[in-house]
Amino acid sequence: MLVVMQAHATEDQVRAVCRKIEKLGYRPHPMPGATRTAIGITGNQGEVEQGTLEEMPGVQEVIKVSKPYKLVSRDVKEDNTIIRFAGTQAQIGGRGLAIVAGPCAIENRDQAFAVAERVHRAGAQFFRGGAYKPRTSPYSFQGLGVEGLRIMAEIRRHFGMKIITEAIDNESLDLVEEWADVIQIGARNMQNFSLLKRAGRAKKPVLLKRGMSATLEEFLMAAEYILSEGNYNVALCERGVRTFADHTRNTLDLSLIPAVQRLSHLPILVDPSHGTGKRNKVTPLSRAAVAVGADGLLIEVHHQPDQALSDGMQSLFPDQFDDLMAQVRQIAAVLDRTVPEIGEREPVAVGT
Amino acid sequence: MLVVMQAHATEDQVRAVCRKIEKLGYRPHPMPGATRTAIGITGNQGEVEQGTLEEMPGVQEVIKVSKPYKLVSRDVKEDNTIIRFAGTQAQIGGRGLAIVAGPCAIENRDQAFAVAERVHRAGAQFFRGGAYKPRTSPYSFQGLGVEGLRIMAEIRRHFGMKIITEAIDNESLDLVEEWADVIQIGARNMQNFSLLKRAGRAKKPVLLKRGMSATLEEFLMAAEYILSEGNYNVALCERGVRTFADHTRNTLDLSLIPAVQRLSHLPILVDPSHGTGKRNKVTPLSRAAVAVGADGLLIEVHHQPDQALSDGMQSLFPDQFDDLMAQVRQIAAVLDRTVPEIGEREPVAVGT
Amino acid sequence: MLVVMQAHATEDQVRAVCRKIEKLGYRPHPMPGATRTAIGITGNQGEVEQGTLEEMPGVQEVIKVSKPYKLVSRDVKEDNTIIRFAGTQAQIGGRGLAIVAGPCAIENRDQAFAVAERVHRAGAQFFRGGAYKPRTSPYSFQGLGVEGLRIMAEIRRHFGMKIITEAIDNESLDLVEEWADVIQIGARNMQNFSLLKRAGRAKKPVLLKRGMSATLEEFLMAAEYILSEGNYNVALCERGVRTFADHTRNTLDLSLIPAVQRLSHLPILVDPSHGTGKRNKVTPLSRAAVAVGADGLLIEVHHQPDQALSDGMQSLFPDQFDDLMAQVRQIAAVLDRTVPEIGEREPVAVGT
Amino acid sequence: MLVVMQAHATEDQVRAVCRKIEKLGYRPHPMPGATRTAIGITGNQGEVEQGTLEEMPGVQEVIKVSKPYKLVSRDVKEDNTIIRFAGTQAQIGGRGLAIVAGPCAIENRDQAFAVAERVHRAGAQFFRGGAYKPRTSPYSFQGLGVEGLRIMAEIRRHFGMKIITEAIDNESLDLVEEWADVIQIGARNMQNFSLLKRAGRAKKPVLLKRGMSATLEEFLMAAEYILSEGNYNVALCERGVRTFADHTRNTLDLSLIPAVQRLSHLPILVDPSHGTGKRNKVTPLSRAAVAVGADGLLIEVHHQPDQALSDGMQSLFPDQFDDLMAQVRQIAAVLDRTVPEIGEREPVAVGT
Repeated sequence: MLVVMQAHATEDQVRAVCRKIEKLGYRPHPMPGATRTAIGITGNQGEVEQGTLEEMPGVQEVIKVSKPYKLVSRDVKEDNTIIRFAGTQAQIGGRGLAIVAGPCAIENRDQAFAVAERVHRAGAQFFRGGAYKPRTSPYSFQGLGVEGLRIMAEIRRHFGMKIITEAIDNESLDLVEEWADVIQIGARNMQNFSLLKRAGRAKKPVLLKRGMSATLEEFLMAAEYILSEGNYNVALCERGVRTFADHTRNTLDLSLIPAVQRLSHLPILVDPSHGTGKRNKVTPLSRAAVAVGADGLLIEVHHQPDQALSDGMQSLFPDQFDDLMAQVRQIAAVLDRTVPEIGEREPVAVGT
Repeated sequence: MLVVMQAHATEDQVRAVCRKIEKLGYRPHPMPGATRTAIGITGNQGEVEQGTLEEMPGVQEVIKVSKPYKLVSRDVKEDNTIIRFAGTQAQIGGRGLAIVAGPCAIENRDQAFAVAERVHRAGAQFFRGGAYKPRTSPYSFQGLGVEGLRIMAEIRRHFGMKIITEAIDNESLDLVEEWADVIQIGARNMQNFSLLKRAGRAKKPVLLKRGMSATLEEFLMAAEYILSEGNYNVALCERGVRTFADHTRNTLDLSLIPAVQRLSHLPILVDPSHGTGKRNKVTPLSRAAVAVGADGLLIEVHHQPDQALSDGMQSLFPDQFDDLMAQVRQIAAVLDRTVPEIGEREPVAVGT
Repeated sequence: MLVVMQAHATEDQVRAVCRKIEKLGYRPHPMPGATRTAIGITGNQGEVEQGTLEEMPGVQEVIKVSKPYKLVSRDVKEDNTIIRFAGTQAQIGGRGLAIVAGPCAIENRDQAFAVAERVHRAGAQFFRGGAYKPRTSPYSFQGLGVEGLRIMAEIRRHFGMKIITEAIDNESLDLVEEWADVIQIGARNMQNFSLLKRAGRAKKPVLLKRGMSATLEEFLMAAEYILSEGNYNVALCERGVRTFADHTRNTLDLSLIPAVQRLSHLPILVDPSHGTGKRNKVTPLSRAAVAVGADGLLIEVHHQPDQALSDGMQSLFPDQFDDLMAQVRQIAAVLDRTVPEIGEREPVAVGT
Repeated sequence: MLVVMQAHATEDQVRAVCRKIEKLGYRPHPMPGATRTAIGITGNQGEVEQGTLEEMPGVQEVIKVSKPYKLVSRDVKEDNTIIRFAGTQAQIGGRGLAIVAGPCAIENRDQAFAVAERVHRAGAQFFRGGAYKPRTSPYSFQGLGVEGLRIMAEIRRHFGMKIITEAIDNESLDLVEEWADVIQIGARNMQNFSLLKRAGRAKKPVLLKRGMSATLEEFLMAAEYILSEGNYNVALCERGVRTFADHTRNTLDLSLIPAVQRLSHLPILVDPSHGTGKRNKVTPLSRAAVAVGADGLLIEVHHQPDQALSDGMQSLFPDQFDDLMAQVRQIAAVLDRTVPEIGEREPVAVGT
C-alpha cells in the first residue's frame, strides 16, 4: 500500500501518518519527492483495511499495491496446472486444446444424443449441457435437473466424452459432483462465495467462468476461494464482459488470456458463444481465442437451433461446428498446439 | 419483437420471414418503409427464442421489444408498494424515508451496541450489520454468523429498530429469516436465482441490491423471481455500478431511481456507502439520493472506522451520521417527505 | 511511480531495477516487504515513460502514482476559482449557483427569444444555445453558425443574460470568442488538444464538458491544457458518461462533483439534460446535482420540444423549467447556497 | 422507430399517438398484441426527433430502429472497398493484409530510419509515425510537426513504404495531406466532425480510429461524415475501448471486426499496441486480430523502447516485430490471406 501526501503537506502531517501506520502494525517507508512525499507500507498480509489513512490531514490518496491472491499465483507454483482425467487422454491445460461442446440446455434424450454424436465426431473431448439453468426470467425454461444429468451420464458411457455442467447452488453441486466430470460455476455465481467454498471441497475439477464485470484480480480471487479449500483442479473461462458496446451481447476480452497466463498457473478457456451471443461471430472469435493462446474452447452447438429452448441465437449448427474445428485445428498448429483429431464414428462403449 | 430487413431484401425474403414467424406460433406485421421493410411480431408471451430469424436471408437485425417482467410492473399494480412492519411505524416505501444504518459487519456485542445507540439516537428506524459477509478474499473476515444474528436480535429488543442483514446462501437465509426483519440479498447474488427463489418463499420482506453490472431490466427481473414465488414485500437498492471511472469504487447511478419509479411499484433505496466507497463522498451523495426521490438510505456507520474489520474506509463516524441526518431531513422536506425525528435517548424496552 | 517485484524476485533483480531507475535519472527507494519488494521512484516531473521497467526480470507490475496536473490543482491554488463577468452579478463558482438554460440549438430568432424570455423570467443568468452543433449524423441539422451567434448577442442585449455557446473548431472558436461570453468545449472535443490550446489563448472564460469516457484525471488534464496557455477562467461540467446502463442515454456521475472539488479549485456544473437524455429525468437529477454540491446547472429548455430540430426528447417545457427552478432554489438553501430570484419581466435594456 | 404502449393504454391513447405520428409526417402501423400495442413508424428519412412521443399518455417506450448510415453501408455498396496506391502493390482491404508499423512518434531522423529499416525488412508496406501527437498532458512531447513529416517523406523515398500519420486539426491535416499517403484521424478526434468533414474533402485516403467509447453505429456514422464529403477511401481501425477492466490500458474489442464486415464495405484494421498498452500483449493480440479476420495491423515498433519519448511501454523491439510477422503470416494463411514477404534489404529508391 502506498500513501500519497498532498504537495503542501507538512512534515508533521507526514510523521503523523507514519505513526498511524506503525500503530496499525505495519512499517512505513517515507519517500520524499520533488513535489510531494509518498509513504510505502510493508508488513501487511493480504488486504489492509485502510481505516482513516485517507482522511488524515495532508493525505492526497491511498493506493493499494499488493495483490491478495496466493495459491492461484505463479509466485506459489511456476508450472502450468494440467487437469487430467483418469483413463482418458482428455485434459485441460496441456499442449492439446480442450474442446467443450454441446447444447446450452439438455432438453431431452434425443436432442442431447443428436448433438453429442455430432460434436464427438468432430473431435470434442468434453460434452457440455445445462441441467440447471440460471435464467434471467423466472418464466423461462429452467433445465431438466437430475434427469438432464442422467442423460449426460449416458452420453459419457456412449461416446466416452467427459461431462461438464453447471451447478447453481449447493444442492445441484452435490448432484453435479456425483454425475459429471467437471463442475461449472457460471458467471452470475462467480462471487457466490458460499458456492465457491463448496466447490473447493468437491472431488471433481471446477470450471470457473468470469463474472460479467469482474476484474482480473476478482476473477483470480474467486478461484483462490476454491483452491483455499483444497481443490487445485480449477480451470478459468473468459466469456465476455459487460460494456457499453451493443453489437454483441458481451464484449469478449481476449487480452485476459495472456494476462492470466502471466500471473497464474491455472488453464484458461474461452467461450465465444456467450462472449458474443451471435452465431455469426462464434467461429471468427473461436479462431481468435485459439490464436491468442487460450487453452481451450466452450462452444454451444444445437442440431435445431431455431427450436432450442434457450440461447438458440448463439448456437452453431453441427456443420458449422465441423467447420470451426477444421479452422481452429489449423490455427492451433501455428502455436504448436493440437486440437483433437476427428472422432471415430464408433461409440467408445456399447451404450445404455 | 421486430425484424428489420436489409434495404435490398426481396419480397420473397420478407415473405419467408413472415412464414417463419407464423411457424413459430406468432403473428407477423410487415411494415414496408421508404428504404426497407420491418416486420413486427406479436402473440409472444414474454421471451421469444429468436432461433434463426437473424440468420435468414435478407434480415439485417432482430430487435427485442417487449419487457419480460410482469409482477413488478406498474402494468400489474399502479400504486406504490409500502412495506409495513407490525407494531411499529417503520415502513419502506411511504412518505417517510427508510433510514437504514449500522456497521458493515457485526464484530462483537460492544461494537454493535455502540453503533446502534448512536444511529438510533440520530433517527434510524432500521439497523444493518453483516453476520455473513461476502468478501472478495477467502482470507478476509467472513462474519460472526449466527452469533452476529443474536447480537442484532438483542439490538432490536433494546432499541426497537428493525434488523436488516444479508443472506448469502440458503442456509444463512433460513437463519436470517428466523432472526431478522428484512432479508438482504447482496449485489453479488442479484442473479443467484436459487437464492432469489428461496427468498421468494420467505415470510419476511426482502431488500434486493442491484448487481454490479445489472441493467434496469435485469434488476427488475431479479425482483420478479422473488415476487413470482409469492413474496410481494420487496424493496430495491441502488449501490453503484461498475464503470471505467476510478475516482469512486463504483459509479452511483441515481438516474435509476426515477427510472424504476416509472416502471415499477416497488420502493427503491440508495446505498451511497458502497456506491462511492469513500467516506468523504457519503454525505453529499446521500443528499443527492434523497433529492432525486429515493425512498430511503443505507448508510454504514462505525464508532471506530479505522479499526473496522471491513469497509472501514467508507464508514461514517457517528458524528458525521448525525450531520448527514440533519442535512437529508431538510432535503426531504423540499420533496414533502420526512426523515424520522431524532430518537429518544431512552431505549424502547428494558434490554437483553 | 512504484515498481512491484515478484515474490520470488532475486536481490540481483531488485538491484538491476534500481540501477535502471537511476539510469533514467530518477531515485529508487527499495522497500523489502514480507513477501515481496516494492521500489518507489521519485524525482520524476510529471509523466514518466516507464520504458522497459515492466519487462525486466523479476518485475510484477509498475504502478503510476503521481498525478500530472498542476495548475488546476489545489496544490497550486487552495481557494475556489470564481469566474466573474464585468458589469453584472452573474458569476460561476461562488455561493450563488450558475443557472444556464436555453435550447439545444438556436433555430431562428423567434424560437430563441421565446425560450430566452421564459428562462430569463425564471431566473437564469446565462443563456445557452448551439450555433455550431456536433451531430452524430452528417445529415442532421448542424446549426445556424454565425447567424445563431448574432441572435444570441441580441438576447444578451435584450435580457442581460450572459451567452454560453459551443465552439467546435478553431474557426468557430474565433467567432464564439467574439460574440459570446463563455466558450463551451463539448464532450466530444474534450481531448481535441488543438482546440483546448486555442481556448487557452482566448480572452473569454471556457466551460469544458467531460468526455464521454473521461476519467477524473483526464478531465483535469484537459482543463490543464487551457490553463497552461494562460486562461485561468475555466469551469468544468459533468454531463454523463458512457456505461452499459441503457435506461438513460448516459450515466450521470454525480460523485464526480465532490471528487473534483477535493482536488481542484475550478467550479463544476452539471448538465442533467445530456446526462440523462430523457425529459422526465431532468428535474429529479437537477435536484440531486444541487444537493451533491454542484456550482450550477445547464438545462435544455424549448418552448415547443416536439418541433425541436435537435434533442427535443430531453428539452424541458418552460413551465417545467419554472418548476425545476422553484425546487432547486429550496435545495440550494439547505446547502446555504442561492439560486437567482425570479427575473423581472422588464428587459434589462431596450432591445434591438 | 417503434412506439411501445403500456399494457393498460386505452384505444384513445393509441389513436392519439397515431395521429401525432401522422402530424409529424410519418406513417403509423399499430400492432395490437396479447398484452399491449406497439406502433411501428415508417416514412422517416434517417434520424427522427421523437419530440413528445415518449411523454404522451399511455406510452411506455420509444425504440429507435432504422440505422442512419447510408454510404458506408453494404445496402449501398455490396463489394468490399479496396484502397489502392498508384505505382505500388500496397493496398488496404484486399486479400493481402495491410501491415502498418513504426514508432509512436517521430523523434529524429536517426530513430525514424532505424525503425523504418527494420519494419521494412520484416515486410511492412506502410510506415506509421506521429508528427502531431495528441497527448493527455500539455507537458508531454507533442511531436516534431512538419519536421516529422519531412523525415517520413524521406523514408518513403528510401524504402518505398507508404506513410500514415495523424492529423489533429485542420492545419495539420493540410500538411499531412500534402506530405503523407494516408491521413490518420485518432480515437480522440473520432467525433471531431469539423476535422472529419475536412478529411472528407482531402485527396488522400483516411484511416479512422474508433473512439474510446464509440458504439458501432457512432463509428460508422463518423466514417459516413468523411464519405458524405466525397472521400470514399476510408479504412477503419479498432484500437480498444474503455471499460472497467484494468489489466490492459483498453479492452480490445475484436468482435467489432466481423460486426463491421457484416454491415459495411469498408476495410477494418486492428491496433493491438494501443488496444492493450502492454508490450507483452501485442503479439498474442496481433495473432488474434488476424485470426478474427481483420484486414491489417497497426503495430508500434521502436529500436530503443525504453528511451522512447512516448508509449515506450507498448512498443515492440524490432526482433519482436520480426517474430510477430512470422506468426501472423502463418495465421493469415489459414484464412487464405497473405502477409507481405520479408522485404529486400536493398532500398527501393536511391535515397535522400
